[in-house]
Amino acid sequence: MKREELTEKILDIKREHNWSWKYITSEIGGVSEIIIVGALLGQMKLVKPLARKAAALFGLSELEERMLNEVPHRGSPMPPTDPLLYRFFEMVMVNGPAWKALIEEEFGDGIMSAIDFDLQIEREPNPKGDRVKLTMSGKFLPYKYYGAEQGVPELGYKED
Amino acid sequence: MKREELTEKILDIKREHNWSWKYITSEIGGVSEIIIVGALLGQMKLVKPLARKAAALFGLSELEERMLNEVPHRGSPMPPTDPLLYRFFEMVMVNGPAWKALIEEEFGDGIMSAIDFDLQIEREPNPKGDRVKLTMSGKFLPYKYYGAEQGVPELGYKED
Amino acid sequence: MKREELTEKILDIKREHNWSWKYITSEIGGVSEIIIVGALLGQMKLVKPLARKAAALFGLSELEERMLNEVPHRGSPMPPTDPLLYRFFEMVMVNGPAWKALIEEEFGDGIMSAIDFDLQIEREPNPKGDRVKLTMSGKFLPYKYYGAEQGVPELGYKED
Amino acid sequence: MKREELTEKILDIKREHNWSWKYITSEIGGVSEIIIVGALLGQMKLVKPLARKAAALFGLSELEERMLNEVPHRGSPMPPTDPLLYRFFEMVMVNGPAWKALIEEEFGDGIMSAIDFDLQIEREPNPKGDRVKLTMSGKFLPYKYYGAEQGVPELGYKED
Amino acid sequence: MKREELTEKILDIKREHNWSWKYITSEIGGVSEIIIVGALLGQMKLVKPLARKAAALFGLSELEERMLNEVPHRGSPMPPTDPLLYRFFEMVMVNGPAWKALIEEEFGDGIMSAIDFDLQIEREPNPKGDRVKLTMSGKFLPYKYYGAEQGVPELGYKED
Amino acid sequence: MKREELTEKILDIKREHNWSWKYITSEIGGVSEIIIVGALLGQMKLVKPLARKAAALFGLSELEERMLNEVPHRGSPMPPTDPLLYRFFEMVMVNGPAWKALIEEEFGDGIMSAIDFDLQIEREPNPKGDRVKLTMSGKFLPYKYYGAEQGVPELGYKED
Amino acid sequence: MKREELTEKILDIKREHNWSWKYITSEIGGVSEIIIVGALLGQMKLVKPLARKAAALFGLSELEERMLNEVPHRGSPMPPTDPLLYRFFEMVMVNGPAWKALIEEEFGDGIMSAIDFDLQIEREPNPKGDRVKLTMSGKFLPYKYYGAEQGVPELGYKED
Amino acid sequence: MKREELTEKILDIKREHNWSWKYITSEIGGVSEIIIVGALLGQMKLVKPLARKAAALFGLSELEERMLNEVPHRGSPMPPTDPLLYRFFEMVMVNGPAWKALIEEEFGDGIMSAIDFDLQIEREPNPKGDRVKLTMSGKFLPYKYYGAEQGVPELGYKED
Amino acid sequence: MKREELTEKILDIKREHNWSWKYITSEIGGVSEIIIVGALLGQMKLVKPLARKAAALFGLSELEERMLNEVPHRGSPMPPTDPLLYRFFEMVMVNGPAWKALIEEEFGDGIMSAIDFDLQIEREPNPKGDRVKLTMSGKFLPYKYYGAEQGVPELGYKED
Amino acid sequence: MKREELTEKILDIKREHNWSWKYITSEIGGVSEIIIVGALLGQMKLVKPLARKAAALFGLSELEERMLNEVPHRGSPMPPTDPLLYRFFEMVMVNGPAWKALIEEEFGDGIMSAIDFDLQIEREPNPKGDRVKLTMSGKFLPYKYYGAEQGVPELGYKED
Repeated sequence: MKREELTEKILDIKREHNWSWKYITSEIGGVSEIIIVGALLGQMKLVKPLARKAAALFGLSELEERMLNEVPHRGSPMPPTDPLLYRFFEMVMVNGPAWKALIEEEFGDGIMSAIDFDLQIEREPNPKGDRVKLTMSGKFLPYKYYGAEQGVPELGYKED
Repeated sequence: MKREELTEKILDIKREHNWSWKYITSEIGGVSEIIIVGALLGQMKLVKPLARKAAALFGLSELEERMLNEVPHRGSPMPPTDPLLYRFFEMVMVNGPAWKALIEEEFGDGIMSAIDFDLQIEREPNPKGDRVKLTMSGKFLPYKYYGAEQGVPELGYKED
Repeated sequence: MKREELTEKILDIKREHNWSWKYITSEIGGVSEIIIVGALLGQMKLVKPLARKAAALFGLSELEERMLNEVPHRGSPMPPTDPLLYRFFEMVMVNGPAWKALIEEEFGDGIMSAIDFDLQIEREPNPKGDRVKLTMSGKFLPYKYYGAEQGVPELGYKED
Repeated sequence: MKREELTEKILDIKREHNWSWKYITSEIGGVSEIIIVGALLGQMKLVKPLARKAAALFGLSELEERMLNEVPHRGSPMPPTDPLLYRFFEMVMVNGPAWKALIEEEFGDGIMSAIDFDLQIEREPNPKGDRVKLTMSGKFLPYKYYGAEQGVPELGYKED
Repeated sequence: MKREELTEKILDIKREHNWSWKYITSEIGGVSEIIIVGALLGQMKLVKPLARKAAALFGLSELEERMLNEVPHRGSPMPPTDPLLYRFFEMVMVNGPAWKALIEEEFGDGIMSAIDFDLQIEREPNPKGDRVKLTMSGKFLPYKYYGAEQGVPELGYKED
Repeated sequence: MKREELTEKILDIKREHNWSWKYITSEIGGVSEIIIVGALLGQMKLVKPLARKAAALFGLSELEERMLNEVPHRGSPMPPTDPLLYRFFEMVMVNGPAWKALIEEEFGDGIMSAIDFDLQIEREPNPKGDRVKLTMSGKFLPYKYYGAEQGVPELGYKED
Repeated sequence: MKREELTEKILDIKREHNWSWKYITSEIGGVSEIIIVGALLGQMKLVKPLARKAAALFGLSELEERMLNEVPHRGSPMPPTDPLLYRFFEMVMVNGPAWKALIEEEFGDGIMSAIDFDLQIEREPNPKGDRVKLTMSGKFLPYKYYGAEQGVPELGYKED
Repeated sequence: MKREELTEKILDIKREHNWSWKYITSEIGGVSEIIIVGALLGQMKLVKPLARKAAALFGLSELEERMLNEVPHRGSPMPPTDPLLYRFFEMVMVNGPAWKALIEEEFGDGIMSAIDFDLQIEREPNPKGDRVKLTMSGKFLPYKYYGAEQGVPELGYKED
Repeated sequence: MKREELTEKILDIKREHNWSWKYITSEIGGVSEIIIVGALLGQMKLVKPLARKAAALFGLSELEERMLNEVPHRGSPMPPTDPLLYRFFEMVMVNGPAWKALIEEEFGDGIMSAIDFDLQIEREPNPKGDRVKLTMSGKFLPYKYYGAEQGVPELGYKED
Repeated sequence: MKREELTEKILDIKREHNWSWKYITSEIGGVSEIIIVGALLGQMKLVKPLARKAAALFGLSELEERMLNEVPHRGSPMPPTDPLLYRFFEMVMVNGPAWKALIEEEFGDGIMSAIDFDLQIEREPNPKGDRVKLTMSGKFLPYKYYGAEQGVPELGYKED
């Protein structure tokens, strides 16, 4: 059994019951909906109590439940051909240089974590057309300069 | 003269004066700092009054000022090799499928605009390590179904 | 069930009945034929009333009807190897720089939307050989310059 | 001398004089503005009388004038990273399959020429936001079936 | 049913009967053998009378006959890994620049059509080893310069 | 000195004198014009007597003459972005499978040489539009089956 | 039936019988073992008498025997991910420029044939660790300079 | 000034003085030699006190010293063509799947940081040939499951 | 039977029994766990006694046991999309140039073997968060300079 | 100074003096001519006594001499566009699978070294056309199975 086959089965069941993701994520609950949907689409792991609830909801076998609890081989093809996904790719392509400059100036030498990272999607009502509001928050991870001797900053935080 | 040469010159001057981006963007002002830095790095256009201020600050020629006012050929190489930029790419690669599912369920058939789009970078103090907070807001653009007859939704907004 | 399998099934039925796309789109109706054909080939969503008509015409199951109503993962492989499609690719490759220059001069900093976008295909009789006439109309989306202060243009429309 | 160097020089002169493409194309005239701009950007040939006018306008040397009259090595990098150009690429990627189906059904087996091909860009005023209107007209070129014997269609026009 | 599956079936039948392409193309006849073989391998359309003959020869169903009459999605993977095919690719790669220079000098600005195009393969007996002789003939398609005013060449034929 | 720089210099001199390739190849003579033009464009070697004539014609230094006599690093970027060159690429992509089938049936297991290979370009007058006629002739090189014992064909010529 | 399926079947039978390649090639015999193994792995044609022996050994059907006698679509994916194969790729990548320089100096303008080409693999005992000895011998194919007039070398052999 | 130019200058000076990396890193000191060499080769930032020492050693200008203190655009081309570097790439390609399985089993869902990461290179004397010993130590970063409610693990550490 | 199918079967059995890799590798034993897991995932060969034990543990057929004993076609797709694997890729991309410089300075001209190579994964407890410790040890393989005459170093070891 | 610039300079001097590689390698001597030519083309290191001789022959500066003694960043672009080089690439692509099968059967699990590796190029006179003979000899490097316990083969040599 491959993870893609489980994803396909889950989407078939969702379609059959005419369930929304909102319904599914509220039934399973426990963590951010991004993580639940990500796991059902094969990009995230569901921790045991949630894998159990997902299995109950979708009527999965015990083996399928265990697979949902496994860490998948993450990642989807890039560049994305789908317009909704491509726009995110384009944001990074066009704005990336400025993001790098500003984050490094504010925080020092390091990165924003893609692992200790949360994202919320909200609708922002607007008379000119509603907006998609994404709030991302990732831990700043400073480069660690190993072997730092006295008087030498050990981490890539902002230097005075 | 190529836009890259202008960018290199601007970075040389910034280094010579030991200016921060914060100083530069507050001197030029007028729009979001992402746009100013993006323009100075060759990814955005600076509108005329701001191009004038940038030229004054950096001591640019009139031709260079005009170039800053031109729409550049946007985009930087992908996949990004730089770790800070790659993490954003990875977020799209890993979370993209879930974002697509949730945005389409909430908004209908369409995309989040990468053109009518704002982003703010903030420091989120946190005892376990400060966090980078990015707030993105993009207009939702529903697919327009041309030729829609009576009784047929004309836009890819959420169907009942 | 994958969207490609539904597409293959639809093409099999079309072939069996010897139906033309003209017949199919006139039976389903309701929106531009480009959108109907696009949806049947797996690139567009059919809104509910049309998905119902398509299902009736092709004798699809309720689950297949629902799949037609879903937003697909859009996009086909590029560069296209098929000569008919490649010619469009070539037009962008050869003429793109001029299009960019002229559109930006006329409209300002922004893009022509590929979402709020209509296209008509017509036969243009011509004694030297009929011509394919494509009329495309897309909303101009100006870059929004966030944080614009007084006296600074807020949108990438044409500056005086 | 390379064609790119001539393009860069022409753009420098355009910037110096603050000329618009409209002004330049009306000064040179003689053919569609897409072709003139394309040639100045290094993608098209300017026929002799127009190369002469372009050289006079930009103060080019005789050798540069001759270079404008040469057929360049056409094509720009794909996929385009610039958002304005990418949207055209996306249209082909998403709508290509439907275009192919509909053009072949209407015209038969063949292609729309990218050589005997005209394109017009117009502003379409619209209260919800002006639109970019592109009218493309390309000669339909039917596949020629060589060696066609009596009773066999010789060209890929629509079969009854 | 996919076109590749039909191709595989046709090759199985050919192998079973130990038929040569010569036999097959003489049985179907009507057009150049390149086109018949191309269609059976999934790259060309067979017009109706020939699709009927092919179906009779191979004992195909009516649906398979109709599929042979459809325009396929053309193109095979490049660069070709097969040595016989690679040599043609190499010829274009090595000699292309000279071909472009000479064809444009002789004919003007335009291309040799790959649509209205015929190719013959012959054996050229030679005491040092027989040779493959390919005779290609394609219509020259001059670039059309739209909007050409009086005194300006309208087509990319050779200028005096 | 790089071969590209020599090519650029030669094209500059050709432009300055307004020479045609026909003139240049007739002045240098000695071999097929494809080879002469190919060498001047950096894809072929000119043998010594011809390199000498080319050097005399273009006023090249002795070192440049020697460079023309060297075997260059052959090959140009693929896929070609230029429409004239792309059409040849497309021919191989679309017709390649049929060429392979027919050549192997007629000649056996082997290839058409791209080294012992001649090509002629001619204008074929035609009332519907002149045609480009390419006549290619390449030696058939049969695969050699080493270690062939008695009764086993040693070469990939056609088996009875 | 696809050639890969035949290869997979042959490997299954080889595994079942615990046969070595040495055994298989000695049973089939007739040509170099590289060619036999290559054919069984889908990269070479087996001539009829050998295809018959291979079919007898592996218990293949008559259709499978015929497929072994067909010229396959040659080539495997590059760059090779397998370390054993990658080392050969690396040799070409690192030493290629020197090989080209030395072969062309010794032989003139041409190539070493990959068609009329033999390779032997031997074990070379060595106290520091046995060595793999590959002896390759390929016919030198000089570039043919067509249209060579008197006094001009006709072939790319070494010039005096 | 570009970072590559500074790297080239530094390598020129190193060559001129016949300095070893060992000498250079001991002169600059303060952090791990990997970081110092990485910074001089344009992949790392040198913190201020070290940039000052590097500038003194190499006789760099103040601007060059500041550039060494900047975070560079990290990353070098992949796949590496150089054999020494390729072997590391191959290790990941061949052993990656096993590393992923074992690290996730021991640590849970997460990654080994490439930011808070140290590496030591040592010579391991060995009578059969000395060995390169690399000791890598990276912080394990567990995936954070945002929105984790009571009873649900919040981090991708190993579940019981 | 393909190696991927065997891998999929093994993972299904592992999941069914809820076995850890630790349990599996301790049951099979005999060599480093990296090699056992690598073999079960299709990247390594298991020597006969271990293949036998693996077959007993997983209840594999004799043919499957033999397949485990075969050398597979090694390698997995690069660049890795999975974050855990990508971090290793990034380490090579960012630190590779420094590794090359330091290894060559210490050892001379050569590489660290990826064949005679061992790797250990350990947990390094740390109050700030446990760390992944990888200890790699690979034989240094000096470039061999063939044909070395007296007085010339024969191996790429460090020159005095 | 970059290694490519040194290579270009060396080729200019070689051309100026009309030297052959044979002359150059006999003047420098000391190791295989492949290594000398490889080093002069920027792919190999010349050990000190040979770098000194090369510098004397070409009249290089001391810094250039030192650069010849450095290990270069090895590798040239793949796939090679040059026909002579491509044929080697094709040999690996077509024959690679058979080489892998036969080498592994004869030697066991391992590779042929590309580091401890010698290659000789010879002319093999032949009445049907001289042949290029390449004799390659590389040390067989068996995979080392770390942690091998008693009774388990430690190296990937051939198992009984």
